[in-house]
Amino acid sequence: MATLQDIVYSASINLLSAIFFLLAFAILRLQPINDRVYFPKWYLKGIRASPTHSRASVSRFVNMDFRTYIRFLNWMPAAWRMPELELIDHAGLDSVVYIRIYLMGLKIFVPITILAFAVLVPVNWTGGTLERFKDLTFSDIDKLSISNIPPGSQRFCAHVLMSYVFTFWTLYVIYKEYKTTAVMRLQFLASESRRPDQFTVLVRNVPPDPDESVAEHVEHFFCVNHPDHYLSHQVVYNANNLANLVERKKTLLNWLTYHQNKYERNPSSKPTTKTGFCGLWGTRVDAIDYYTTEIEKLTEEEDKERERVINDPNAVVPAAFVSFRTRWGAAICAQTQQTSNPTIWLTERAPEPRDVYWDNLAIPYVELTIRRLLVAVALFFLIFFFMIPIAFVQSLASIEGIEKVFPFLKPIIEMKSIKSLVQGILPGIALKIFLVLLPIILMIMSKIEGFTSLSSLDRRSAVKYHLFLLVNVFVGSIVTGTAMDQLKTFLSQSATEIPKIIGVSIPLKATFFITYIMVDGWAAIAAEILRLVPLIMFHLKNTFLVKTDQDREQAMDPGCLDFATSEPRVQFYFLLGLVYAAVTPLLLPFIIVFFAFSYTVFRHQIINVYNQKYESGAAFWPDVHMRLIIGLLIAQLLLLGLISTREAGKLTLLLVALPVLTIWFHVFCKGRFESAFVKFPLQDAMVRDTLERATDPHLNLKLYLQDAYVHPVFKDGAVERPEILSEEEDNSLVPTTRNSQKSHSKYSSDVSSGVGS
Amino acid sequence: MATLQDIVYSASINLLSAIFFLLAFAILRLQPINDRVYFPKWYLKGIRASPTHSRASVSRFVNMDFRTYIRFLNWMPAAWRMPELELIDHAGLDSVVYIRIYLMGLKIFVPITILAFAVLVPVNWTGGTLERFKDLTFSDIDKLSISNIPPGSQRFCAHVLMSYVFTFWTLYVIYKEYKTTAVMRLQFLASESRRPDQFTVLVRNVPPDPDESVAEHVEHFFCVNHPDHYLSHQVVYNANNLANLVERKKTLLNWLTYHQNKYERNPSSKPTTKTGFCGLWGTRVDAIDYYTTEIEKLTEEEDKERERVINDPNAVVPAAFVSFRTRWGAAICAQTQQTSNPTIWLTERAPEPRDVYWDNLAIPYVELTIRRLLVAVALFFLIFFFMIPIAFVQSLASIEGIEKVFPFLKPIIEMKSIKSLVQGILPGIALKIFLVLLPIILMIMSKIEGFTSLSSLDRRSAVKYHLFLLVNVFVGSIVTGTAMDQLKTFLSQSATEIPKIIGVSIPLKATFFITYIMVDGWAAIAAEILRLVPLIMFHLKNTFLVKTDQDREQAMDPGCLDFATSEPRVQFYFLLGLVYAAVTPLLLPFIIVFFAFSYTVFRHQIINVYNQKYESGAAFWPDVHMRLIIGLLIAQLLLLGLISTREAGKLTLLLVALPVLTIWFHVFCKGRFESAFVKFPLQDAMVRDTLERATDPHLNLKLYLQDAYVHPVFKDGAVERPEILSEEEDNSLVPTTRNSQKSHSKYSSDVSSGVGS
Repeated sequence: MATLQDIVYSASINLLSAIFFLLAFAILRLQPINDRVYFPKWYLKGIRASPTHSRASVSRFVNMDFRTYIRFLNWMPAAWRMPELELIDHAGLDSVVYIRIYLMGLKIFVPITILAFAVLVPVNWTGGTLERFKDLTFSDIDKLSISNIPPGSQRFCAHVLMSYVFTFWTLYVIYKEYKTTAVMRLQFLASESRRPDQFTVLVRNVPPDPDESVAEHVEHFFCVNHPDHYLSHQVVYNANNLANLVERKKTLLNWLTYHQNKYERNPSSKPTTKTGFCGLWGTRVDAIDYYTTEIEKLTEEEDKERERVINDPNAVVPAAFVSFRTRWGAAICAQTQQTSNPTIWLTERAPEPRDVYWDNLAIPYVELTIRRLLVAVALFFLIFFFMIPIAFVQSLASIEGIEKVFPFLKPIIEMKSIKSLVQGILPGIALKIFLVLLPIILMIMSKIEGFTSLSSLDRRSAVKYHLFLLVNVFVGSIVTGTAMDQLKTFLSQSATEIPKIIGVSIPLKATFFITYIMVDGWAAIAAEILRLVPLIMFHLKNTFLVKTDQDREQAMDPGCLDFATSEPRVQFYFLLGLVYAAVTPLLLPFIIVFFAFSYTVFRHQIINVYNQKYESGAAFWPDVHMRLIIGLLIAQLLLLGLISTREAGKLTLLLVALPVLTIWFHVFCKGRFESAFVKFPLQDAMVRDTLERATDPHLNLKLYLQDAYVHPVFKDGAVERPEILSEEEDNSLVPTTRNSQKSHSKYSSDVSSGVGS
Repeated sequence: MATLQDIVYSASINLLSAIFFLLAFAILRLQPINDRVYFPKWYLKGIRASPTHSRASVSRFVNMDFRTYIRFLNWMPAAWRMPELELIDHAGLDSVVYIRIYLMGLKIFVPITILAFAVLVPVNWTGGTLERFKDLTFSDIDKLSISNIPPGSQRFCAHVLMSYVFTFWTLYVIYKEYKTTAVMRLQFLASESRRPDQFTVLVRNVPPDPDESVAEHVEHFFCVNHPDHYLSHQVVYNANNLANLVERKKTLLNWLTYHQNKYERNPSSKPTTKTGFCGLWGTRVDAIDYYTTEIEKLTEEEDKERERVINDPNAVVPAAFVSFRTRWGAAICAQTQQTSNPTIWLTERAPEPRDVYWDNLAIPYVELTIRRLLVAVALFFLIFFFMIPIAFVQSLASIEGIEKVFPFLKPIIEMKSIKSLVQGILPGIALKIFLVLLPIILMIMSKIEGFTSLSSLDRRSAVKYHLFLLVNVFVGSIVTGTAMDQLKTFLSQSATEIPKIIGVSIPLKATFFITYIMVDGWAAIAAEILRLVPLIMFHLKNTFLVKTDQDREQAMDPGCLDFATSEPRVQFYFLLGLVYAAVTPLLLPFIIVFFAFSYTVFRHQIINVYNQKYESGAAFWPDVHMRLIIGLLIAQLLLLGLISTREAGKLTLLLVALPVLTIWFHVFCKGRFESAFVKFPLQDAMVRDTLERATDPHLNLKLYLQDAYVHPVFKDGAVERPEILSEEEDNSLVPTTRNSQKSHSKYSSDVSSGVGS
């Protein structure tokens, strides 16, 4: 068991490495050549231009102004300085609310830490159980933890009381945060400028009609059932194949540019390539010629496919984006049920155009439910049995396995020093690769589940990742053995026994988790700000592919907040903090450092680096709240289990009320706030419609919405808009959908007067 | 352990008693004097008149036509004869769908029984385990059950296979039934004539406004946010106090009539009464004078209260019934969220006027969630700890307890025969009283939860009663000991151990449940048709209270289907059937007899007797479906537990897929059908609006809806409609809400053409 000295030692090493990362970052970010790696957001905003024009040749790449190095930490106050409203404007609500999660961590844990150190640490320290057993090895950390209290002691009162205080404080903070976030979201939605998704509803599962095309059917249906509000619609083309072709062409173009650049720099040798997979096998040919002909072929194919998609009625999927005259009309259509069969004509608020996940728009209801069943079963096996394939790979990836497949490596591997190195590293590698691949696997599973927007895909993946971390990292670290073994153990244990088993091990694992926080938390955050991978990628691209400034623009990889993996990881620290708050308060300061440091780093990143792929208006907050409640429940149950083994008698019963209260609180908050994240209220829609009618009475909404929801492959500047779309829009099948706008205008004056009342 | 002979004996006794009940019913129903007890529905429909006028004096009371006695069972085919559509028209959809539950029982269990007897009974019979142990006492029933299969036998394949077949058959039947019911409901809603609730939305939690009354606030809000659709509204008065006064006055009037009748029949002695509680204590006064003055006082009080309610702005609760011009407008308002705060301006489809539970319309959100928490906790204690107060009462109600309180009874009680009788009966009485009171207690708990319609109260009480039956009757009968003991046992058992413990006891309890089915099921149904309590009550009232034919009309108590208690009981038989289908198939015929008999009896009752208090359009079906799924899951888990103790190895694993499939099936059905029971689809609303506009263009909807949602105490013919209501309706606060009906009419032609497309 680690002593306090070990922890201090480990902490200082981790602090040093973090400081090293920060120093490296401080130096690298000041070099003009890295400007596009560390400040891409400003380039994308058009505020910052390439520093290549105005400076001398050396200082184009290296910063010679040594004064700037002295203030190497000055990015921190700079990150804190931007006010929240400006930040929302600059980075979007998603990012701002995301970093508020870290701020919430501070709000929860700073008071808890102070209280815990003021009350629980003295109580534990003077408990005096561990000293009595002279032969027992124990560390100072254990003396600070609940382990030091003798069984049956009245001192457990303090822990139970503090557990109540911690719970109520946490609930209070997350209530306030839910409220604030809901208000921020509503303000954000209200203050947003006009956006296509405000007027649009995504309609899925359009039933097939033998006499009409999908477009006609949609038009008829909404003309009949939303006569006063229907404006227009856009059908969805199944352009997945086309998108693949476009993607492949882009890769080939990159290779062509690479070889052309190579040839330009060294005209003596013509670059060659092999025709096989990745240029590794096959006959050697002239690279530039090869890629040029390949691209020509692909362009031809692409044109054919594009032609097919536009003209083939089977390429239209049974889904459509239906637009309405008013936000009010769109809001009611999204929230109501259209027909008596609730599996057809499904309507929901359209995601932002860039948030649409086009591949999933056309899944029928039965298939969807089967997909979800399969993914649920697969997730279960992934979480509890993922060690089986890894163990299999590990058994293959032994020294003997390598020697069998690559006999020529035998002499090298057999060298003693290398052998031990390989033996040490190999078993871990399969696991590491799996853990790196895990978010991708989870995202694929979410895609199979059939969600239609990138933001919902991210949210679903986060749910899965959170479960995985809970079972495999949290429980897995506390109770040794694989998740499969644990599953077996827990199935054969009673409902009251499980919290006891885990609860009892909790204090023993404190040092492990402290180290975990430093290695996984602190170091990962420091690495995050250094952006090593984008740094290397940018310089590679810059060297081989970039010709023009536009190319350089494309070579930038600003990245974005990866909600699906980073949020569940943050939740893990919340869980650790809540679990250890009443057990081993010493862990709390490390959590606080993590939250403070993360907050600063991510604030810097969303200001200077990240470029969000979509803006969901903090739609993820109900999930965050839900996971906090889960963390709180786990913490309460484990404390209950722990204390029930210490002969605390009646005190245990006192703790039973906490989970009940917490679940009730969750139900309360769900009813109180959740719909703000799901539905668009009619009052707000009406206010905005009225305002717009007053400020912009001659708006041609049809024109405005015309191209909003066209598949991105049709949006490329070079490509014409498919003709059929414009045809459809002029061909108003039911003539009466026009000129009902007049009947609205007469209400506008009353509406605006009514809003004030 | 009961032998087959015991069962046959018990069955014949129960059959005989059932036949006795039926005979009694057959004779009693033919007596003209009982006509209003056994055929009240026809009186209420106005088809049947009192038989007092046309016949001779004796035959007015006793049926002398002995030929009719011969065909004493001819009510059965008569009950079956009425076709379903006519039955819906006659008794309402709720009743018809309710008896379909029994029909569904037959559909599920007849094929299962045939299969089980064809496959499982031979397999079990030849299992030959029990014969091997000569010293073991076993019965023929056990030889027919799974107990007769030796551990580790391959014969378990048959049970696993049959379990799959039974599950799939059950799922198929309940899928078909869900679908049929959904279609029936939609057709019913579509074929219904115009009803106020189609146009009306119940709005709760109207926020307080310092400048406006509730009525003005509601009018303003809906004029602004539903300008094209809002028609009118009715505020809700807190008339609970007034309703109590009216109720009390009614009781006093009854007593007055009773004494007046008594006096008329025997003018020699003036009837007297005592002024205290129930006329048991207090000074003796002249009864007629006393009640007359009491009624006068009460009438005065009532008038004052009525005045107060109408004029006091505080008597208006923050809720209202808002009516719209079209069904479409009402449908969208009910399904959408009005403001960004989802706890105010809550809208839902208005219940039918007679279905409204007026007392609960004004509960604020926070109070509502707290009430639900408290009721949930109370329900938990009621289910698991109800034995504690009963045991306490039982300890008081012992011989010694009685002797202490009523010393004068001592000599009687001490007589040996009476003593043993009292000792035998007393402990049971407290429990029996509790079980009779239970549905009332559960209904009170549902009322505290704050539901706003009688139908939802019934549904919620059914959920609670089902839970109680599951825990205390099903598990309680199988595992001996009180629910509290079981809770303790199960908390200290593992998740895999619990199905094993119960599963192993399942075959042993088969004879007990067979007896239970006969005593509780068959006998209760036979008693149901006899209607002993209403029979006695009617004749009492008829003797003492009835003066005119109108009085006799009121003395009838047709009763109604009590969904809250009878449906959970039916579910209990489904559960028994599903659990024993693969374990002891001998139980199945008893279940089938129960379902067939119940179906006939209840069909007779809804045709001739019951008068439903409300019509919810079979809104309870999702609950029925849900509970069937729960029954199926329990059956599967118990079989899994049972087979896992018989060393069946891999076969156990095969069974794990069943619960997963069942849960998935539930999710699938929920998505597919549930919204038909919750939401009113826009397409249907539009079709009905269009039709109505064509058939009845000059309908004055405002007039039609004027009085629809007035509290019943204001509806008494004698009482004037409160003036304030009519004032409000003329005082259109926002003038533009009128004359927008024109803009609709121009679409009607397109709509009707579009519906066909």
